[in-house]
This record gives sequence, C-alpha cells and structure tokens, in this order.
Amino acid sequence: MAERLQVDYLLTCAADESAEDKARGIALEQTVELPAACVPAPLGDRVVGRVERLSALPEQRYEATISFDADLVGSELTQLLNTLFGNISLQDGIRLTDIRWPAGLLDALGGPGHGMAGIREATGVPAGEALLCTALKPVGLGPAALAERAHRFALGGMDLIKDDHGIADQPSAPFRERLAACQEAVARANAETGGNSLYLPNVTAPWPALEARLAAARDAGCRGVLISPWITGLDAMRWARDRFGLVLMAHPALTGSYFRPEHGLSPDLLLGDLFRIAGADASIYPNSGGRFGFSLATCEAINHRLRYPLGTLRPAAPTPGGGVDAARAADWITRYGTDTILLIGGSLYAQGDLTRATASLREAIGRG
Amino acid sequence: MAERLQVDYLLTCAADESAEDKARGIALEQTVELPAACVPAPLGDRVVGRVERLSALPEQRYEATISFDADLVGSELTQLLNTLFGNISLQDGIRLTDIRWPAGLLDALGGPGHGMAGIREATGVPAGEALLCTALKPVGLGPAALAERAHRFALGGMDLIKDDHGIADQPSAPFRERLAACQEAVARANAETGGNSLYLPNVTAPWPALEARLAAARDAGCRGVLISPWITGLDAMRWARDRFGLVLMAHPALTGSYFRPEHGLSPDLLLGDLFRIAGADASIYPNSGGRFGFSLATCEAINHRLRYPLGTLRPAAPTPGGGVDAARAADWITRYGTDTILLIGGSLYAQGDLTRATASLREAIGRG
Repeated sequence: MAERLQVDYLLTCAADESAEDKARGIALEQTVELPAACVPAPLGDRVVGRVERLSALPEQRYEATISFDADLVGSELTQLLNTLFGNISLQDGIRLTDIRWPAGLLDALGGPGHGMAGIREATGVPAGEALLCTALKPVGLGPAALAERAHRFALGGMDLIKDDHGIADQPSAPFRERLAACQEAVARANAETGGNSLYLPNVTAPWPALEARLAAARDAGCRGVLISPWITGLDAMRWARDRFGLVLMAHPALTGSYFRPEHGLSPDLLLGDLFRIAGADASIYPNSGGRFGFSLATCEAINHRLRYPLGTLRPAAPTPGGGVDAARAADWITRYGTDTILLIGGSLYAQGDLTRATASLREAIGRG
Repeated sequence: MAERLQVDYLLTCAADESAEDKARGIALEQTVELPAACVPAPLGDRVVGRVERLSALPEQRYEATISFDADLVGSELTQLLNTLFGNISLQDGIRLTDIRWPAGLLDALGGPGHGMAGIREATGVPAGEALLCTALKPVGLGPAALAERAHRFALGGMDLIKDDHGIADQPSAPFRERLAACQEAVARANAETGGNSLYLPNVTAPWPALEARLAAARDAGCRGVLISPWITGLDAMRWARDRFGLVLMAHPALTGSYFRPEHGLSPDLLLGDLFRIAGADASIYPNSGGRFGFSLATCEAINHRLRYPLGTLRPAAPTPGGGVDAARAADWITRYGTDTILLIGGSLYAQGDLTRATASLREAIGRG
C-alpha cells in the first residue's frame, strides 16, 4: 500500500474553539467535505484525512499532523494543491508548516529538470563559486534599449540576465522582437568576451501564448526562461519542464498572501518544496533586508528546502532578490553558501555603467 | 489614447510609514521595479503607475487610487494579475478594493460565455425562479455509487449536479468512467421525469489532462463543467471558455488567503469581477453562516459584482454554498434574489433520501 502524505499544520484556535474539532474539521474538509456521520462506513477509515498527532503550544496554538490517502492525492499537482490547502484557505488559523513527501509522489512529479548543477553546466560556473543574475528593466523600453542593457551586463560577466517579470508582450517591446534582440546582444557579448552569459526571457502568458513563447525561446537558442508559476498555475511550470526541457527560473509574484504567521503556507514550503517539486531550477524570493519583509530565518529555510535531499529530486538554486545591495553581495554569499544565485537589479542600475558595475560585483564575490 | 486602468487600494500604514511613500512605492513596484531616480525620463510620466488620489481614513488607513497605462497591462489575464497584485502580494497593508475597468480591456477579456441567462436556457428554469445545485460526494465512492446519487438528485429535480471539487481522477472513480456513468444516470432520470438536470464534471487538472477532460465532457454531452481557476491558473478558465464553449462553474479553492481585511484582494473583486471577467458563468462562494467566515455584506458584494453592468459582459450567477442549510433556502433566495444558484450538499445528504430531499427543497423555494 502506498505511503500516506503527512502534513503538519499550525492551528491557532479562537477562545471557544476546540483544537480536536479544528483538526478533525480539516481532515473532513480536505477530503469528503461532509460531516463524519454522512460518510459511508467503508470510506471513513481510508479516505477521510487522519489526525495523527495533536500537541499543544502556548497561546491557544497547536501542532497537528494530518495524513492523507495516497490515492486521494494521486500524482497531479492540481489535486495536490487542493488537498493541501484548497478549501481551508477560506478558513482561519490554519498554517501549513511541513510536508513529508511519499517517494512515489516525488518520483511522479519529478522536480527540477536541471537544478543547480544543470545551471552551473549551462553557465560554466564551477562548483564553489556563486552565480549572479540581473533583470532587464524597466518595462516601457524598446527591444533595442533592453538589448543594449543586456549586452552591457553580459560584457561585465553577468551569468543570468532575465526579463523583469512585469515585461510581458507590451507594444513597447513585443515578446518576439525583444527575444531576438536580447538573445543576439548576449550572444554578441559572449563572442567578444569568451563568456557564457544566458538570457532568460519572461514567458509568463495565457494559453496558448505560453507554449508559443517557450517554443520561440527554445528556437532562439535560449537555455532558460523566467516564469511566474502562481500566475500561470503551478502545473504550467511542470508542463513546461516536460515539454521544453529549458532551465526554469520561478518568480514568486502573487504568492505573498499565503505567508501570514497564523494562516496560509510557510514561504519555505511554497517557494521551496512546492516550486522545486513542480520543476523550478531556480526559485526567486525576496531577500531579507530588501523591499519585502522576509526574515533571515525564512530565507534560510527556503534555501534549505531548495537544497535538502528530497527523494531523487535535483537540488534547486536559491535566488534571493528584491532589493539586494551589490555592496553586500559577498556577505550574502558567505551566509547562504556558493550554491546560490544572487539576483541584483536596482543596485547595479543605480551605478550607471552596467558593465563596470557587474565586473565589480564579480570581483566582490571572488570571481574577478 | 486608451483609458488607464484605475485601481483603488486600502493602505494600512505602520506608525513610521508615510502613506505618500507607500502609494508611490506601489506605483513603482507594480510597473518599473526601480527607484524613480533610475527610470529613464520619457517613461516616468507614462509607464510608472500614477497616484491619482490619496485620502486619509481613521487609524492610519488611507484610500489610494493608482492608475496604470493600458499598454502596460495589455489584454492578457496573466499580466493583469501581475500588475494588480503580483509583487505587492509580498508586502503588507495593501488591499485592493475596487477596479474601474477600461471598456477595451473588458471587450478583450470577454467575460462569461453563457452567464446567468445561458444557464437558464440550458436548464430550462425561467426567469423569476432560483436555481438549485448540489455536489456529488464523497470522494472515494466508485462511478456507480456516484452515478446512483446523481440519478436520485436528478429524479428530485436538481438543476445542476456537480462533482465535489476534490473528486479529480482518483482510482476509486477515474474521470472518464465517472463522466460516462454520471452523465448516463442524469440523462436517464431526465428521460424518466421529463426534467432537464445537468451534470457538471470537475475538469480541474494538469496540462494536457485539462484539455482532454474538457473534450471528454463536451463529447459526452455535458453542457457545463466545474473548474477551480486559482488552481489551474485563472487564464485556463478563459481559455476553456474560448476553446470549448461549455458552461463554466468556478470554485474558489485556494483563493482564501487573499481575503484579509488589511491585505490582499477583496473577495467581491476576486470571486466577483475577476472570475466573471475570466469567463465564470457561475461563481461559487462560501455563504454567510456556513462552514466559512464570509459576512453577509461580503456575500452581497460578490452578488453585486457578478451581476452589475460591466461593459458588455454577461451577468454571472452567484452560487453561495459551503454549508447552506436546506431549511433556510427560501430565506436566502428572498435575500439574494432569484438570479442565484443555491448550492446545497451536506444538508441534503443528511436527510438520507436524496430524491425526496431535493423535491422538498424545490417546494421550499416555490418550485414545487
């Protein structure tokens, strides 16, 4: 019999709320959606979620482990998300904190197609050295201006040059024109320097444009792309992995509302485990001390989940960004380790000369 | 020049936070993702979001209106979601409360393919009478047992019989077997009674299974389907509308985390405007007084947004569910009006005889 999916929830109970009832309520809500009395007897023991553990913490909080039948979850990301948090997203005081993944489910979902090691191979950056990434911006510039910026970054030795995630298919820089211009500019810089910078266009799009943009990126010679999986649907990333085989850098747009301390999914589970399982080779997250509010502990927890042994899944690349100061780059690498992609945008643009700013940044992290 | 997209945000400021800076921060973050000083001059006036209005409320709260360039948003749902709330989902104290939709954007996105009027046509329920919907459950039952339940509901005159949204493609009732069995059972009941019940299978699935299940539902003669658009990606619903033309009933799974009072999207915007614009003919939401915490005012606001004049978009059907008591059905119709689909599951199952329970429910709402 297949292993059950074990899920840990942090419950925060109202004054008049029983933790036992709340845990049991989750077990019913996320499976049969019926009161226990209405569940046909033979199903009760197997299909209904099982409260495996419930222990009290201070301040009306409880840790609960609920297990789910492997057949109920199946091996589709859609039903997995639904089982983990579909209906209870609409309730209060329920936070998903950990998942113990059955090996069969991990094998079925597959994880990163390339992972950290594959990104090293594509960029030629050896183990023991951190990688650098930047974003082409701002939206509103034309293909030529964006390509010029890409060229300058590549001349300085930037490993990964991605579109800003808000650059889609605007009239100012339609996807195909931008793709051609930026890919050419980066290839030209690589030819000049002997370097190996990669351009990652943003393919986040509706159907069937998503497929067309992935195909165009592949056909233009791109090794990878940027995608916002919470906007396309998480499974679209898994599908892109299987269909196109490109390196996938995942952006966290639209995920932030799940990250409340007492309700939702912990950021390390969503941007770590779930994005990794769904095929992210690199997972961007808002670094501590930037424009967003993640704590250092949260960032380190995400790093851990992107790298820890998880069935046979490849480790993915933590990609802290969102206001990282170039002057602190070396500190972050010291703290996070070299199996990290440091995403720095604004702090390079503020220096004016993008080639020189990139070269200095490389030097600062010991890659001069 | 195309109209700008006008968005209202409720800002909740920390003690040391300036509302002006916060509003200006959103305008930059959701567009150029750069400090104002780094934005090339010609783009500043057009591409950067524009703070149109900022007015103080009690307790450090403010109402801000920010407008976005129509070309920046374009007409893709993915970039629309990203512009509205992508990065700022990761910040605090920002709640989207209203959107004034440019007519061009509404025309491009299209809205419900059938709407309330189309559902009336498909079910034969005349204007002035409310519709009834129920869910086949629990997951774990086989196709024959689910089909038997569908048959009994249809014999009682249930208008819409949908899969529970957690019933996907489990081994207990694989999609195609379940589809064939339930569709046949409902057709048989219709032949017996002269009624016109519809079976709506749940097609929420990964790619390319989503497409295959939609095609199978259409080929089996189903007039509509159930989909959880926040799990598939919102645009997948729009795509399903364009590709298959079936009635789409949208389920709110996974949306709940956005509904905080001080951060996120208001439920009426997400389950009302956004689901309607993306093609939902009916939008399920957790009714007040059920297992979830929506207030009556929230429910009425959702109803309003599904029905109000919105460009040339068809009105959609509010579908309150999630613990509605059959005994209170008439009260809800009185309150919400007859252009409503009342979704009642558990309360019918609790009565045992599904045919009789459905017939009584019809009688209670004046459709005996």
